[in-house]
Amino acid sequence: MAKVVNIGVIGAGRIGKVHTNTLATLVPGVKVAAISDVVVDAAKALAAECGVEKVTPDYKDILNDKNIDAIVICSSTDTHATLIEEGANAGKHIFCEKPIALEIDRIDSALAAVAKNKVHLMVGFNRRYDPGNAKMRAAVDQGLVGTPEMCVISSRDPAPPPISYIKVSGGLFLDMMIHDFDLSRFLLNDEPEEVYAYGNCQVDPEIGKAGDVDTAMVTIRFKKGAICHINNSRRAVYGYDQRAEVFGSKGMVQTKNLHEDNTILATEPGYYEPPIQNFFMTRYIPAYQEEGKVFARCIVENQTPPSTGIDGRVSVLMGYAAIKSVKENRPVLLSEVDK
Amino acid sequence: MAKVVNIGVIGAGRIGKVHTNTLATLVPGVKVAAISDVVVDAAKALAAECGVEKVTPDYKDILNDKNIDAIVICSSTDTHATLIEEGANAGKHIFCEKPIALEIDRIDSALAAVAKNKVHLMVGFNRRYDPGNAKMRAAVDQGLVGTPEMCVISSRDPAPPPISYIKVSGGLFLDMMIHDFDLSRFLLNDEPEEVYAYGNCQVDPEIGKAGDVDTAMVTIRFKKGAICHINNSRRAVYGYDQRAEVFGSKGMVQTKNLHEDNTILATEPGYYEPPIQNFFMTRYIPAYQEEGKVFARCIVENQTPPSTGIDGRVSVLMGYAAIKSVKENRPVLLSEVDK
Amino acid sequence: MAKVVNIGVIGAGRIGKVHTNTLATLVPGVKVAAISDVVVDAAKALAAECGVEKVTPDYKDILNDKNIDAIVICSSTDTHATLIEEGANAGKHIFCEKPIALEIDRIDSALAAVAKNKVHLMVGFNRRYDPGNAKMRAAVDQGLVGTPEMCVISSRDPAPPPISYIKVSGGLFLDMMIHDFDLSRFLLNDEPEEVYAYGNCQVDPEIGKAGDVDTAMVTIRFKKGAICHINNSRRAVYGYDQRAEVFGSKGMVQTKNLHEDNTILATEPGYYEPPIQNFFMTRYIPAYQEEGKVFARCIVENQTPPSTGIDGRVSVLMGYAAIKSVKENRPVLLSEVDK
Amino acid sequence: MAKVVNIGVIGAGRIGKVHTNTLATLVPGVKVAAISDVVVDAAKALAAECGVEKVTPDYKDILNDKNIDAIVICSSTDTHATLIEEGANAGKHIFCEKPIALEIDRIDSALAAVAKNKVHLMVGFNRRYDPGNAKMRAAVDQGLVGTPEMCVISSRDPAPPPISYIKVSGGLFLDMMIHDFDLSRFLLNDEPEEVYAYGNCQVDPEIGKAGDVDTAMVTIRFKKGAICHINNSRRAVYGYDQRAEVFGSKGMVQTKNLHEDNTILATEPGYYEPPIQNFFMTRYIPAYQEEGKVFARCIVENQTPPSTGIDGRVSVLMGYAAIKSVKENRPVLLSEVDK
Repeated sequence: MAKVVNIGVIGAGRIGKVHTNTLATLVPGVKVAAISDVVVDAAKALAAECGVEKVTPDYKDILNDKNIDAIVICSSTDTHATLIEEGANAGKHIFCEKPIALEIDRIDSALAAVAKNKVHLMVGFNRRYDPGNAKMRAAVDQGLVGTPEMCVISSRDPAPPPISYIKVSGGLFLDMMIHDFDLSRFLLNDEPEEVYAYGNCQVDPEIGKAGDVDTAMVTIRFKKGAICHINNSRRAVYGYDQRAEVFGSKGMVQTKNLHEDNTILATEPGYYEPPIQNFFMTRYIPAYQEEGKVFARCIVENQTPPSTGIDGRVSVLMGYAAIKSVKENRPVLLSEVDK
Repeated sequence: MAKVVNIGVIGAGRIGKVHTNTLATLVPGVKVAAISDVVVDAAKALAAECGVEKVTPDYKDILNDKNIDAIVICSSTDTHATLIEEGANAGKHIFCEKPIALEIDRIDSALAAVAKNKVHLMVGFNRRYDPGNAKMRAAVDQGLVGTPEMCVISSRDPAPPPISYIKVSGGLFLDMMIHDFDLSRFLLNDEPEEVYAYGNCQVDPEIGKAGDVDTAMVTIRFKKGAICHINNSRRAVYGYDQRAEVFGSKGMVQTKNLHEDNTILATEPGYYEPPIQNFFMTRYIPAYQEEGKVFARCIVENQTPPSTGIDGRVSVLMGYAAIKSVKENRPVLLSEVDK
Repeated sequence: MAKVVNIGVIGAGRIGKVHTNTLATLVPGVKVAAISDVVVDAAKALAAECGVEKVTPDYKDILNDKNIDAIVICSSTDTHATLIEEGANAGKHIFCEKPIALEIDRIDSALAAVAKNKVHLMVGFNRRYDPGNAKMRAAVDQGLVGTPEMCVISSRDPAPPPISYIKVSGGLFLDMMIHDFDLSRFLLNDEPEEVYAYGNCQVDPEIGKAGDVDTAMVTIRFKKGAICHINNSRRAVYGYDQRAEVFGSKGMVQTKNLHEDNTILATEPGYYEPPIQNFFMTRYIPAYQEEGKVFARCIVENQTPPSTGIDGRVSVLMGYAAIKSVKENRPVLLSEVDK
Repeated sequence: MAKVVNIGVIGAGRIGKVHTNTLATLVPGVKVAAISDVVVDAAKALAAECGVEKVTPDYKDILNDKNIDAIVICSSTDTHATLIEEGANAGKHIFCEKPIALEIDRIDSALAAVAKNKVHLMVGFNRRYDPGNAKMRAAVDQGLVGTPEMCVISSRDPAPPPISYIKVSGGLFLDMMIHDFDLSRFLLNDEPEEVYAYGNCQVDPEIGKAGDVDTAMVTIRFKKGAICHINNSRRAVYGYDQRAEVFGSKGMVQTKNLHEDNTILATEPGYYEPPIQNFFMTRYIPAYQEEGKVFARCIVENQTPPSTGIDGRVSVLMGYAAIKSVKENRPVLLSEVDK
């Protein structure tokens, strides 16, 4: 394989732009060689912005391109599994945005194609690559907090997505809390057994009419004994609230929010700090950059990525357990929703 | 009634010392006129320390003393209800440490005696009187966070109590989380409907053998829609961890921990702040002081205390719901455990 | 000497109230036995508030009282030296508010009387007894910051005192920065050699007309090589700003301001913390309490107090050097203003 | 002029690398078209890293290149003035690292060449482009702190530069505090009149032997009345300490240090935060990026840069006043060192 990893990006929407920009400008050793999008103008604009030479409306042009080492799947969720399968069959390494699919069957068939073709699949759980979260996990691994006993994650979006998105996304547990599910497994380095979820609609009744909740709290029981709490809200007016902590027998490690800048203004009414970073793309720039570097390194060095298809699969299972738990108002075992 | 409120303290143990010291030295308009304890030497020592004139082994001497306006019940939990009844029948105003009793029947008969005799009963939920918690509630009342949607409380003791205490205390949900149950009602200004609790034994297996849990997470559904999470641990090696937050449609208000002092040491390995205040009596000195002032003022001005017998009753119900929830691993309605 | 230290307070003004309240309610082993003030009603009111039995318009009644072990001098600055002399001649231990006098001659004669009568004199540099400052000094003593190289002190009052006070106080360098001068010597555990001061009038022109500055910055060269900066303002609208830091070869230790409470409010415009404690009597309650305890202990155990007449003398010298420096716009050696 | 600004970088040393990397990867609308360095291998390596096409040992090749719109001068200080003159005469816009020269005469002749040729000269005071400092200045401009009265800047390097550098750099006041001098003018939006400086050698006696100080404190009097303190140390073991504050009639605005990540570890000895960012290139990445964007914009839109030759000139004058002040141990007027 060439020293430079040639990448084809499939999908030039919001997350496609993030990955293309990051890979093209911030990740050494990587070249974005092609972009495809059925809306070819979107692909063209992005290619121009990032200096990408090849643009196509048809992702198959990317799969058929011998120069392309790896694909980055940023298209809509319903296409992920198919693209993984076709990409794997074409011998490409694959980076796929979460979730792999909304159905466990589809996930499993996609993972089978990956295994059969012996390509690498990395699932885009960007938070694992955030410096703070990585440092927390390192602290846990080093035993700085002793045996982990509790994990508490507060994760709140600045504003809800469009109702149209909620209708196809799988809902809060599969499009939003899925990140926190994965983070809990990552931080505790353990597997979940049972989920209790309570959610309701306090932010916008339209979300309820679309069959989803906008506010939720979850309790997760892990195999080794630790208990985890996650809370989500679709709307935090003060910004993109992203905090986590792991508590154990020897201490606690936690992450603070990041503010827009490092100033403090002190006046008669008190002390004022600027809002926290409001946009996931701002907040997680270093995470996306690290994620890209890790993906490239795994390909070059032929190593298994730190966030694999299994991680993609388990986080979806946790989402299903949570959805079932809300519906039946009882704790649900992961084994109940697995096939 | 005299301008100075004459108080008789019943029980010269740990919490009796806190209240006697606070009332005697930090609360203007109050005089601790008598202390009783069956261990009369404990009462004598405390009386000497705080300049209290009258000491007796028999609390009835206090109830029969015409000069005493009010009693402060600091004896063991199993005596609380009886002392409330006898105190009320003797026409004394009553401050009683939580819980009123471990049985709802006993609570109800004690509250009936209070009602019948038209005395004031204040239950010792000290955290309501903590400046930070009071400020949070004020922020909620002023609408600064909009409609409350979530409440998150982390409450962790520095070290477990003796096993002997755990055996008679009612366990974590009734001796420890009861404070957080009350705090959640106080902060949200709302009533709980359903509780899901998960707890296990991760700190000390002896606690498990005594039939209790030492680590627990609870989800509470409130009437107006807000959801509350509480986590407790019997052991936080880094100190007495006391944090709360209320999240709503217009923002969030939260309390930080208080550190032992205001220094920061920066050296090669990083920045170091001293541990958080480690002992509930240090952490909540201002709360105990305010609590004493409020009790005295309610007596002098004939006002209903902010934490009444009803608050004592509901918090015990929440504890019972949590215990039943752990046992049956399902959410439990408060109506299921109420009589 | 009796186990309880009997204290007579001379002066029932603002600082007299602080000391009487603190000694009477917060310092064990001490009894405020008498208060004198030429405005006898002020003394009476304070005595009633704090349960002090003896009140007199004439401080000589206190000096002549055999039961009084020690006096606390809280009268106006121009009386301090005389009271120290008379108190020492009467065999009383002495706590005196700073400054001892505005003239070095008077300070020296007062200190001579103290030495001759072998009584203890403690000068009221309350900041040495503040937990944060004491911790900083301990860190320096323990070598945690290595060899001290720089000290930076920011000290700003919420609002200027009355012009009438400024006219008799000796001005900013002798009534306000004197605390910071003493703090610099305390934190560095070293003696100053030279002072450069620049001050002007930016807050209120009336202060300038009274011959004083209201804003000042000072550079102090210490014997062992460390350099110290102090800045003062008579008016900080955001509260009583009190910060210090010692920087050395192995690190830095600093003190943060203390806020009114521990809440944080996050809303759309950002994060908001309450103002810092606004009043020196609130900010330094623990310092006054510790100061009283130390004074009592020094008397009971016959030990030299940690802030003595020499400290009172040197801080006044530093003030004179600063005043001369502003006037002549050049660095001034302490030896130039010493006699 | 083309929409894309073609830039030639002169000097491929440490700061040349910073600017080339930033301009090539983080600044849209800019193309680094050429790099020159007498050590041509250094230029080649940097060009390869950043995708720059043209490499030359002779900067004249850049000046003679018609495609080059602007030069970025990153060579050694003694070449700056000559390169500005030659660049200006060649019609290039110029970005020059500070200082322009160590002699006022040379600065003035360079500025004359810039004026004569009507090109833009931007001097590399990167801190003006730091988001926190820019926000502070905006707060001052918006009147959020009222009339500025004091400015306090603490600026400490992690470790001293090589003695060889100190011998040619002009010393601490001209190679290090020059940034803080410029920052004080920027934050206060005012001009300095007089400087008092005290400095000594506490970090490394070799620095003293080289004729420089390693620890210094400066007081600066500004025209409108504000007073400014700056402290510098060549060695802060806890990192690159960069703090500033502006205090005024209505409040204070300040900048905090930035830590390596956003984690907090709480264990038995206390709370621990990671070190502050240790390297100026890490700390000021966003500043360099903004600086590059502003330079490009000024060229494209034909606007005067926010940090001009005058800023470069005055900061050197302040350095000379400080050096003279240390030597003569007295405050020095800027007019004394100006020609």
